[in-house]
Amino acid sequence: MTNELDRTHDAAARCWVTAANAQTTPFPIQNLPFGRIEHPRLGRGARVVVAIGDRALDVAAAAQACGFTGLAGEAAAACSDGDLNALIALSPAHATVLRHALFDSLHESTPADDRAPESALVPISEAQLLLPMAIGDYTDFFCSMHHAMNASRIFKGPETLRPNFHYLPIGYHGRASSVVVSGTDIRRPMGELPPLGDAPPPYAPCAMLDYEVELGIVVRGGNTLGETIPIDRAEDAIFGACLQNDWSARDIQRWESMPLGPFLSKSFATSISPWIVTVDALRPFRVRQKPRGEDIPQPPLHLRLEDDTTWSIDIDCAIETATMRAAGSIPQRISTSRLVDMHWSPKQMVTHHASNGCNLRPGDLMGSGTISGIEKDSWGCLLERTHDGHEPIAVGSEQRGYLADGDRVVMSGRCNVPGARAIGFGSCEGTILPATGQAPRLQ
Amino acid sequence: MTNELDRTHDAAARCWVTAANAQTTPFPIQNLPFGRIEHPRLGRGARVVVAIGDRALDVAAAAQACGFTGLAGEAAAACSDGDLNALIALSPAHATVLRHALFDSLHESTPADDRAPESALVPISEAQLLLPMAIGDYTDFFCSMHHAMNASRIFKGPETLRPNFHYLPIGYHGRASSVVVSGTDIRRPMGELPPLGDAPPPYAPCAMLDYEVELGIVVRGGNTLGETIPIDRAEDAIFGACLQNDWSARDIQRWESMPLGPFLSKSFATSISPWIVTVDALRPFRVRQKPRGEDIPQPPLHLRLEDDTTWSIDIDCAIETATMRAAGSIPQRISTSRLVDMHWSPKQMVTHHASNGCNLRPGDLMGSGTISGIEKDSWGCLLERTHDGHEPIAVGSEQRGYLADGDRVVMSGRCNVPGARAIGFGSCEGTILPATGQAPRLQ
Repeated sequence: MTNELDRTHDAAARCWVTAANAQTTPFPIQNLPFGRIEHPRLGRGARVVVAIGDRALDVAAAAQACGFTGLAGEAAAACSDGDLNALIALSPAHATVLRHALFDSLHESTPADDRAPESALVPISEAQLLLPMAIGDYTDFFCSMHHAMNASRIFKGPETLRPNFHYLPIGYHGRASSVVVSGTDIRRPMGELPPLGDAPPPYAPCAMLDYEVELGIVVRGGNTLGETIPIDRAEDAIFGACLQNDWSARDIQRWESMPLGPFLSKSFATSISPWIVTVDALRPFRVRQKPRGEDIPQPPLHLRLEDDTTWSIDIDCAIETATMRAAGSIPQRISTSRLVDMHWSPKQMVTHHASNGCNLRPGDLMGSGTISGIEKDSWGCLLERTHDGHEPIAVGSEQRGYLADGDRVVMSGRCNVPGARAIGFGSCEGTILPATGQAPRLQ
Repeated sequence: MTNELDRTHDAAARCWVTAANAQTTPFPIQNLPFGRIEHPRLGRGARVVVAIGDRALDVAAAAQACGFTGLAGEAAAACSDGDLNALIALSPAHATVLRHALFDSLHESTPADDRAPESALVPISEAQLLLPMAIGDYTDFFCSMHHAMNASRIFKGPETLRPNFHYLPIGYHGRASSVVVSGTDIRRPMGELPPLGDAPPPYAPCAMLDYEVELGIVVRGGNTLGETIPIDRAEDAIFGACLQNDWSARDIQRWESMPLGPFLSKSFATSISPWIVTVDALRPFRVRQKPRGEDIPQPPLHLRLEDDTTWSIDIDCAIETATMRAAGSIPQRISTSRLVDMHWSPKQMVTHHASNGCNLRPGDLMGSGTISGIEKDSWGCLLERTHDGHEPIAVGSEQRGYLADGDRVVMSGRCNVPGARAIGFGSCEGTILPATGQAPRLQ
């Protein structure tokens, strides 16, 4: 696949924004993830930007100053109203050519006159990071076999998979209105909890609040209602990826989910990181989707691709308790999830989703589902990690079965393979606020 | 509750648009449902209208000509860009006052100079009816006890309800992108069907295509993320209602739904009627929510309202086969569903949905779930009516277990109580197109 790499993947390329050359930055010139910010120096309202080192570059302003033309000009023009969905809706070639133009405008060897103007750059630390796109529909998948088996063991005893698990990527519709950008505080939800004995179910604060480490797949889509997306064209239907925390209220989930699946146990909040790393930036990190063992059924033909790929993306999850925060301690890593451990690839999720003719729209979000591997260290939620709270883990000087008020959950993702410049996703984080205790009505 | 009725509910009121006075029209002056249409005489793009008899009245044009002021002027101004969501987002008082102003502009006794101008009226038959609002999120409920018990008997043998059924209105998130307006043809979906024996599941056209008779509740919403909507304020969070057909692929549903609920078996299409009947128009048809029997647990306190109400809405479902259409036969009524048979009220659905802090947005759609009563004649889907296809019913000269290609399903709804002028919803219909047979990829 090296023949698909181009100058924007040159591991030695350096940027004239010096912070972009730091070994530890998630945002070197090889990344250029898209986001939406507000910053007074860029004018009123939201602006579409790419992250470069510790700065955000206003895409439309850079394009205007540098005189982007052709597809790059069209792509930058789509960004001019601060609407990332308009860029996502364009062709894959538009995003690729815009990436090249932005890369050139930031490259160290570019003459000063051809560089993006300093006036189009603002410090990320000064900006308000917004939800990167308007999400028409949000879908959450359940694509980790290890997660499914762990959940089965915890809930039902034996480690069994449903008969459909190997034949389709199981998914369910989620709530788009409550997807929030990283940094938004998360209010512990109230809800009906499982009843004890013969008593009616209490309406009370969730007592089993969990996170789920996921990759968010940002869809380009483009099929009209009634059309499918063949597996060999699925990659073109993906714009990029972000980190996602699918906050989950396990006690509410247990009580409400039969027979139609999770509902209010999920819809109180889903966090995503503010930066969308494009499929172009992820190209050096493409790896073969793991072949299935001989004892496991192959995917059905319409979801089978001889050279199916995923990405080598690792996501750390860390917790910082209020006590740790007060003491100035850094968040404690709990797990590292690896996307290569998933049973289904992002392309398979896209093709399955559209296989009934369901129309996918630019900016739709698809969560991978909790990413868990074989080892305990790779389990991406507390349900698994603490065996439903029965085997608490040490976090700082405290124990956690599930999340406590004041806990901050911080996910950070990175791609790192030999020969390529490592890139990152930045972080996806949220802090738990106490439940309001406000009952809708206590008569 | 008669003290809440006003001049717009006067059963004797007549309109100067003569077709609005016909006994059989769903759209007399007492109704005034909102919709969105395109018609060349109203200018380019979509216009927000109310239906009156066989005409559609451009709300903004009428307001301008009649000089609506105050809240009515503000409400009409929100409609001026053809965006019904902007009106829905205003206060309940805005919609009420606008209704009064439109009523006056259409009343028979209004002097010619104060009437809505003829130029703002176009024949509905000439207009293109659009999806009435942009739907941010679509949720489907499962609120009929009879439907739940019938489904249980069909799938599992004994008629049992899940333990949670009486304690919360069970719901799940649906797909917003594939909600279409009545009249849109429905492509029979492809999908993975349950495997036969040891063979892998085929990817093939759905063979068990069904409809579901539902009421669509159009939400005003307005709670911010983290806030709830108390049950005694839930009615203010509802803008109106429409008819809804939640098309369902029963074979796909059976295979995919465990453990996370229906997904592609529903997301290929959901049809709604083009006219939103407002809560103001429905006021004369408010009836007490049926009290629960002594052997059934009462709703939890936060979902309990001493004088909870629903609406007296009856929905006919009819089928017209291609053969009947060719012969010029009218659609054959299969069932009549009654909203009063539901176990949970629309207000309870709203309050439950927001009880975890989930933010509801103007224009969100909530389906009631299939509306079925005790009698077979009131069962709102073929799954129930034909016992999963095993007991076909006669439709014209043919038999139907599930829907055949070319079948047109027509739902029509009405409100009719003594002392009030009957109003209707118009129809919600769709015709089944054959599956494309197009596999996403057959290697």
